[in-house]
Amino acid sequence: MDNCEHPLTRRQEIESAAAVTELQRQVKALKRKKYEALCDRLREISRLKEVSRVLQWDQSICLPRGGGEARGKQLAAVAGIVHEKETSQEVGDLISELMEVSLEGLNDFERAVVRDAHIEWDRGNRLTKELAMARIERANQAAQKWLEAKEKNDFMIFAPSLQEMVEISKEVAATVAPGTDPYTVMVDEYERGMTAQRLGEIFRDIKEFLLALLSNNGEKGISQQRRQRREIGVSNFSGNYDVEQQEQLCRKLIDFLGFWPENGRLDVAHAATTYTLSSSDVRLVTKIASNNFSEALLATMHECGHAFYDLGLNKDYQGLPVSKPLSTGMHESQALIWEYLVGKSHEFCTWFWPMAKEFFPELQTKTADDFYRYLNTVHPSPIRVNADEVTYPLHIILRYEIERDLFAGTIHADEVPKVWNEKMQDYLGVLPKDDNEGCLQDVHWSYGCFGYFPAYALGAMYSVQLFEAAQRDVLDLKGYFRDGQFKALLDWLGKNIHSWGSLFASADLLLEEATGNPLNLQVYKAYLARKYEESLA
Amino acid sequence: MDNCEHPLTRRQEIESAAAVTELQRQVKALKRKKYEALCDRLREISRLKEVSRVLQWDQSICLPRGGGEARGKQLAAVAGIVHEKETSQEVGDLISELMEVSLEGLNDFERAVVRDAHIEWDRGNRLTKELAMARIERANQAAQKWLEAKEKNDFMIFAPSLQEMVEISKEVAATVAPGTDPYTVMVDEYERGMTAQRLGEIFRDIKEFLLALLSNNGEKGISQQRRQRREIGVSNFSGNYDVEQQEQLCRKLIDFLGFWPENGRLDVAHAATTYTLSSSDVRLVTKIASNNFSEALLATMHECGHAFYDLGLNKDYQGLPVSKPLSTGMHESQALIWEYLVGKSHEFCTWFWPMAKEFFPELQTKTADDFYRYLNTVHPSPIRVNADEVTYPLHIILRYEIERDLFAGTIHADEVPKVWNEKMQDYLGVLPKDDNEGCLQDVHWSYGCFGYFPAYALGAMYSVQLFEAAQRDVLDLKGYFRDGQFKALLDWLGKNIHSWGSLFASADLLLEEATGNPLNLQVYKAYLARKYEESLA
Repeated sequence: MDNCEHPLTRRQEIESAAAVTELQRQVKALKRKKYEALCDRLREISRLKEVSRVLQWDQSICLPRGGGEARGKQLAAVAGIVHEKETSQEVGDLISELMEVSLEGLNDFERAVVRDAHIEWDRGNRLTKELAMARIERANQAAQKWLEAKEKNDFMIFAPSLQEMVEISKEVAATVAPGTDPYTVMVDEYERGMTAQRLGEIFRDIKEFLLALLSNNGEKGISQQRRQRREIGVSNFSGNYDVEQQEQLCRKLIDFLGFWPENGRLDVAHAATTYTLSSSDVRLVTKIASNNFSEALLATMHECGHAFYDLGLNKDYQGLPVSKPLSTGMHESQALIWEYLVGKSHEFCTWFWPMAKEFFPELQTKTADDFYRYLNTVHPSPIRVNADEVTYPLHIILRYEIERDLFAGTIHADEVPKVWNEKMQDYLGVLPKDDNEGCLQDVHWSYGCFGYFPAYALGAMYSVQLFEAAQRDVLDLKGYFRDGQFKALLDWLGKNIHSWGSLFASADLLLEEATGNPLNLQVYKAYLARKYEESLA
Repeated sequence: MDNCEHPLTRRQEIESAAAVTELQRQVKALKRKKYEALCDRLREISRLKEVSRVLQWDQSICLPRGGGEARGKQLAAVAGIVHEKETSQEVGDLISELMEVSLEGLNDFERAVVRDAHIEWDRGNRLTKELAMARIERANQAAQKWLEAKEKNDFMIFAPSLQEMVEISKEVAATVAPGTDPYTVMVDEYERGMTAQRLGEIFRDIKEFLLALLSNNGEKGISQQRRQRREIGVSNFSGNYDVEQQEQLCRKLIDFLGFWPENGRLDVAHAATTYTLSSSDVRLVTKIASNNFSEALLATMHECGHAFYDLGLNKDYQGLPVSKPLSTGMHESQALIWEYLVGKSHEFCTWFWPMAKEFFPELQTKTADDFYRYLNTVHPSPIRVNADEVTYPLHIILRYEIERDLFAGTIHADEVPKVWNEKMQDYLGVLPKDDNEGCLQDVHWSYGCFGYFPAYALGAMYSVQLFEAAQRDVLDLKGYFRDGQFKALLDWLGKNIHSWGSLFASADLLLEEATGNPLNLQVYKAYLARKYEESLA
């Protein structure tokens, strides 16, 4: 025998290759089976989360007063089961088994399913039940204290709870992502891939730009005469608008925008919001004020933008983590595109005006131009939700800076009113008349939602960049609005944003896919400058 | 030493007694702990069942068309978890441990909790998952076939499915209660404590009585003239009644009856029903026909009666099996008390009539007496849901006899149309013009709901006996109705029926508690005879 051990004959070679192929086939089949088993569990969890949203929608729209206590228990029962299933060993094992092998053979969406399932399982399992419960309990207490503080118009009643919420949030952050900057952990929960550092850079840039813009144009020292002229223009639109008629107008409007009544509904409540009860049942809730019809109009368009996103997610991966909106900021961008970039455009106002006059004959003497100017007035105000597009980011930056400093421990909750008012004066030249008009105006902190506010400003930035890209891709996009046609925009958003779900690991990556660039602050700053100039004209 | 071994000294006696007391205390504490642990699990199951009802109510009232498929999956997800929890080993172990010791120390309601939890756990665990799934699957197919049969007006399309549903129901019965008569098992599911034999005796008695009553009075051969006179009376009330006004009238009415808007709501859909979303959130759904305002009126009163029962259950045992309605028949009795015994009473009509005329000025020329006579006309019809109080039991008896014979195997589903029409002719003297007007009129069998129909007739019997007892206990009960006051009746029902929940093991026992006697057919027969005489007058 020669010393060449086990030489492969041709036949053996063929057999060996076949064996490898067979093994590969088996591995692939096993992987597919594990993947499908994981998806089954993830879909069940999604269904149960949808069920929670049905309970919540009903609570805000239909629930009789006496049903509140039982509803709380029903929500808790479902939440308990969701938590149990989300953190189950079974799901954890399926994820580990899939991650042990390479994910070759799964497509990009399927890999993203495993990736996101892993992130969620990990987060859920790191957080101990005790800590999760303690956070919920303190948030409940904080919410009570905030209400009491609002009632008595005294932030100091809420301050200790706020400080507690900061401390427990830092504890949560240290538990779920040890070694990571805690504020980054907070931000990342809403804005995937965003860091505290990057946010700091973005907001420094925008703040510097806006302070210069407003000061160059002398906003803070704007002439009394010009301000008065503007305010007369604004007050011109206040009146007494029939609430029933406003609701009808909103319904007619969303029909034009492209909202499908077979996949949702519109109801009216005290606060505007959107409930996604399933991928084919998304319910808008708008608010209506009798003295001002544009509030309901813009709120409805805003919520409709949110709804379009959720309805446009990839149906092939329904109920799986990849078929979710990418981030809170991206979601907000979709709402703002419809509220601001469509709703406040001259073309939209031109089309909308005859319809508005039909519903409200008292508007006969006003023109579409009047309405356009009214919607686009820049006027610093102490209240965030009343702010115009140009001054809005400063409201957010103020809150961001306070959150950041609370987390860094460089300020204490007791100092918030003082810091708030100083910044308000510095950035916007206005001083809240009391805590309710100042640092008590938003509910977010009482829920422990730190890192959420930035998403509002990021959403505005994304929305402008996306809209410009859509204008580049669709010939005369705004021209369609003049004829009440919005399909071209909706289709563009569906293709470039909605259908991707959360495939990409950050908003930057999705923006790059949709517009060719990651977040580009130049685009946003140029837009704000134009808006501001126009408002002064 | 004397031979009296281990004589107890006084001190030892005391110590021994103390030890026994201490042991008793420990056993009691342990038992209490087990009982509370069981209750926690049962309450969670109840919450989840409530959640299912929220989903169902939303489905019938609010769900946009496109949301149907996802809703089905949400309902299935919740049902799966309910089944899992209901049949869990954990619950089973708690029940066994409690049943091993004596239930001394628990009060009657608490013992009933253990008793009913045991029954339900046992039933759930005997039924294999395969059989349960097969039954659901066949019922789905049967429901489809029934719809197709209705559409084509041809029972034979549905017949094979009906036969299959009978067979699988017998299999289910043999599995959950081996050795028991299968039809008894079916009936007992709706009517606790009732047997096929007892039902047979009751229905034989009522049938004999009614056939004699109708034949003595010559109903079948009633003079053409008299029938025409009656029909003119009936047609007098047909018209075109504004649907919106009808809804308002129904709302006003339930307010008078004592329905609390903080604990429920009234909506309108194609079928009337009641959804109990929690012990403090019970939602009525009524149906409104534009050509006939009394249909909505009576349907609303009927559903309101159901709602009163569920709202009146003992709140101390909320979410536990003892705080459930006793049976389907008892539930129906509560609805019929308000629909028939109140709604069709002369006193109610007298009070109601001015209000009816306010809502519908076209009724000016009619009197309360006209309306009373219209509501109380006896007139055999082939359609169950249109039947009057006197002929209604015969519709039920006909269905009962067919079910019974299908279960006994003495008739086959193919023979149903023939048997149906023969019995219809024999009992009521009318012949359905086709299958849709005959054996295809009810949906129940397509769901596999055998043993359900009898509850309708039992409910009527219970309602009359209960109402007579209430009249005996409350001085001039019906006199209150003349002033639009219904609190005395509602209070009586709350105390004597609602608050007992399902403490008693049968309707007979509850009737005995409330009226002094188990079901007494003489009371019911006398009532029917009076009603019939009056209608002929």
